[in-house]
Amino acid sequence: MNTAASRKPASRRTLPRLDESLLTHMAPFEKLDKAQIRAILDHAVSRRYAAGTALFDEGAPADRFFMLLDGYVRVVRITPTGEQVTALHIPAGQLLGIAKALGRDTYPASAIAATDSIALSWPMRLWDSFVETYDGFSTASNKTVGQRVGEMNNRMVEMATQQVEQRVANALLRLINQTGRKVDDGIEIDFPMTRQDLSELTATTLHTVSRLLSKWEKQGLVQSKRKRITVTDPHALVVIGQT
Amino acid sequence: MNTAASRKPASRRTLPRLDESLLTHMAPFEKLDKAQIRAILDHAVSRRYAAGTALFDEGAPADRFFMLLDGYVRVVRITPTGEQVTALHIPAGQLLGIAKALGRDTYPASAIAATDSIALSWPMRLWDSFVETYDGFSTASNKTVGQRVGEMNNRMVEMATQQVEQRVANALLRLINQTGRKVDDGIEIDFPMTRQDLSELTATTLHTVSRLLSKWEKQGLVQSKRKRITVTDPHALVVIGQT
Repeated sequence: MNTAASRKPASRRTLPRLDESLLTHMAPFEKLDKAQIRAILDHAVSRRYAAGTALFDEGAPADRFFMLLDGYVRVVRITPTGEQVTALHIPAGQLLGIAKALGRDTYPASAIAATDSIALSWPMRLWDSFVETYDGFSTASNKTVGQRVGEMNNRMVEMATQQVEQRVANALLRLINQTGRKVDDGIEIDFPMTRQDLSELTATTLHTVSRLLSKWEKQGLVQSKRKRITVTDPHALVVIGQT
Repeated sequence: MNTAASRKPASRRTLPRLDESLLTHMAPFEKLDKAQIRAILDHAVSRRYAAGTALFDEGAPADRFFMLLDGYVRVVRITPTGEQVTALHIPAGQLLGIAKALGRDTYPASAIAATDSIALSWPMRLWDSFVETYDGFSTASNKTVGQRVGEMNNRMVEMATQQVEQRVANALLRLINQTGRKVDDGIEIDFPMTRQDLSELTATTLHTVSRLLSKWEKQGLVQSKRKRITVTDPHALVVIGQT
């Protein structure tokens, strides 16, 4: 009894060993053998981030890079007047905080856990050796940057050329595409999404988003309750998004 | 006489030898010695692009990467409905068309010479060997990507949070910052810039841009004639941009 009781705090202090299976199927590491993945994991810190907490902050020294294992992260910019603009959503399986791939010493934006999330992280001083040593890592991180540039670029084009209704429809379609989960009534966005979040993402007002969601709910295109949004008629949204 | 006459067409067919001084002071190549720069130049094609012509087109196979030696290039996206959105302006001294740094096989946007321009280009199959062989090349290309991500990010935040008048003021300030040339009356944007260009850049209508420029011209903040825009009171624009 005494032994078992004293074992518990001890095992809390000792970090659980991270299993290779955490990384073997993820793009930046998929070309590596078990020994290499072991070495990578032995340098990693694994942490849980409660919904709403920051993995890192805009402007802070970029001293670690991250791999999101579970959950979703919102990449957020805060304007001089305190407004938040959501630049991207990052799903599990992607690198983030990879300032070095952008030739930067600071994080260009903040990363906030949109839902309870788990991430591995490594000291940024290991970045160059990862790039040099691990086959496919650099290509995968370039691809990640490229996808995000493409996404930002698309959103910029949308903001420049589309009406609010199209933008909100396309944002919902993008979210179910990236993070959708099949449920009885349709496809649910798999993390908490308030109307405020959606207005920040589409560069419109809370009032407009509320009005649109209420209208679409009456028309049977979406359901929304307690931070959960389900798209019940994706095809109708595609039509609105293209109009 | 006969010899001299026959020499002329011959020297036209032979490409002029590119001098090392073209590249030694440019960031991606500044750590290299003369022999390395010579090897790089020997693989380069040098070409002039008349204003309005494309260096490469959105969606086309990314078979070459470029270094802009002189002029300015607009990076443009074309929407499904045929609207143009200017994502970036690229000044001389920067790499462009570097799809490989984004893990892509195609160009993510079109690059159009905004003014008569000169660029070197290399076959994309040389990209990996440039990254491996030439010290500083990879860091510089990452930094270029990072700056453009930052710029796009800033513009996205502006579009999401600023009024049209602020956006146009900030766009003019950014342009004189990047490409400004001191003239008698103020700072001139150093390439042809129509009101249409400015409306595409700020995601607003031609009508709004015309109205703002006319107002600011009356107030003595800018002068615009024949595709040339000069900012005569930058401080006043800073104030408008921050309001």
